[in-house]
Amino acid sequence: MRVRRVVEVVGIGAGDPGQITVEAVDALRRADVVFFLDKAGQARELSDLRQVILDTHVPGGGYRVARVEDPPRRRDGDGYVEAVADWRARRVELCAELIAEHLGPTETGAFLVWGDPALYDSIIAVVEGVLAGGADFEVRVRPGISSLSALAARHRITFNQIAGAVQITTGRRLADGWPEGVDDVLVMLDAHNTFLEHLDEPGATIHWGAYVGTADEILIAGPLVAVAEQIVASRQRARDAKGWIMDSYLLRRSAGGV
Amino acid sequence: MRVRRVVEVVGIGAGDPGQITVEAVDALRRADVVFFLDKAGQARELSDLRQVILDTHVPGGGYRVARVEDPPRRRDGDGYVEAVADWRARRVELCAELIAEHLGPTETGAFLVWGDPALYDSIIAVVEGVLAGGADFEVRVRPGISSLSALAARHRITFNQIAGAVQITTGRRLADGWPEGVDDVLVMLDAHNTFLEHLDEPGATIHWGAYVGTADEILIAGPLVAVAEQIVASRQRARDAKGWIMDSYLLRRSAGGV
Repeated sequence: MRVRRVVEVVGIGAGDPGQITVEAVDALRRADVVFFLDKAGQARELSDLRQVILDTHVPGGGYRVARVEDPPRRRDGDGYVEAVADWRARRVELCAELIAEHLGPTETGAFLVWGDPALYDSIIAVVEGVLAGGADFEVRVRPGISSLSALAARHRITFNQIAGAVQITTGRRLADGWPEGVDDVLVMLDAHNTFLEHLDEPGATIHWGAYVGTADEILIAGPLVAVAEQIVASRQRARDAKGWIMDSYLLRRSAGGV
Repeated sequence: MRVRRVVEVVGIGAGDPGQITVEAVDALRRADVVFFLDKAGQARELSDLRQVILDTHVPGGGYRVARVEDPPRRRDGDGYVEAVADWRARRVELCAELIAEHLGPTETGAFLVWGDPALYDSIIAVVEGVLAGGADFEVRVRPGISSLSALAARHRITFNQIAGAVQITTGRRLADGWPEGVDDVLVMLDAHNTFLEHLDEPGATIHWGAYVGTADEILIAGPLVAVAEQIVASRQRARDAKGWIMDSYLLRRSAGGV
């Protein structure tokens, strides 16, 4: 059997070093090189958190680090989707160079992904793009605990009501209205407190969390009208203090007819 | 500090013993008693799989096992939701007895949950019901890798298209039509090949998997019209051979306007 290069896409969970899977830990330990694809201007603390996860599970080190800065997203005229697609294309180029330069012929490299690589993350698409460009390596994806699963666990709730559907969406989309056909909505990437636009939803509750699983964790839950302002204030305070925020929430209304 | 009884609700992943988190493993190792809440008539193989996960991560044993059979769901006149609610009420009673009888005053007991306790599982609600009935213990929930995350990782796909929403739903609900407002639908608990009702959805693709992460894993993906019959046949063969099936899938159509 020919030994190939391997690229591991490893979900490392939402911040709690214990919320990474055993196979993900094994993958990190086997990695010859760890790729850090850092967002331009990313909070130093996020990089530190990632290093804590590595130090916890690969205490012996022994891996090389190859670091590259994510290209910034253009914020000009084009639509959001086009801007993201363009951003992905530039990331594919960068990652192709990164892999070509740093991954030896029989080596394993690992991209670390916050949460679950399946959810609002583009590394899988980027790596597939590198493959499509003619590079030769095997890809393995290690699922991770998403910030949503971590949130639900800390609040001791389920995503869905009995036999119900649930929608995972973004703050941007939630601004267009409560999603059709569901009573339970999991919201990520909301920079604008979009839950405030749903205060008049009868019987709505919210389970919100920031920095879930870390020492700075904040959890707030209750009827939406009762706790919305408290969440807004908490978000603002935390973001002012730390310079960044990672939060998500479940919006729930009573299931129709139950 | 008074030492309390602890009930751990532990997500053990979808079948692959490596897809359990480090904190979940720690929780299993600390457990004095493991609660097995088995479905009546549950496939023996599922119980065996769970035991493999325990033996892999708690090789020294040392825990007691307290086993109870889930009450069967009534299949008579009432609606589905009512039947489930009634079933949960009877599970609360059973679990209250189980905990009262088997969990000592300073002990830790663990319920093992397939996948992620947040997704189509009622143990959290049952345990909260036991607490509401006056029992005294601390509850901790350990998130797990859902069968959906495991599926996406094996297919090397993401749940969502760029910045898109995704709906998690059941076969029963999918039978009512393609969910409003989403192009990506994650389907669990579908005993009836409900994807067949969406063959005329333009450009629809499916990523399907059964027994994901186990030795019996089957993965099929492609344009829905091209692979639907192959999935139907595979499901039937696998279910005939094993007597049970655990599968899920992602239905995707091209994002509107992209």
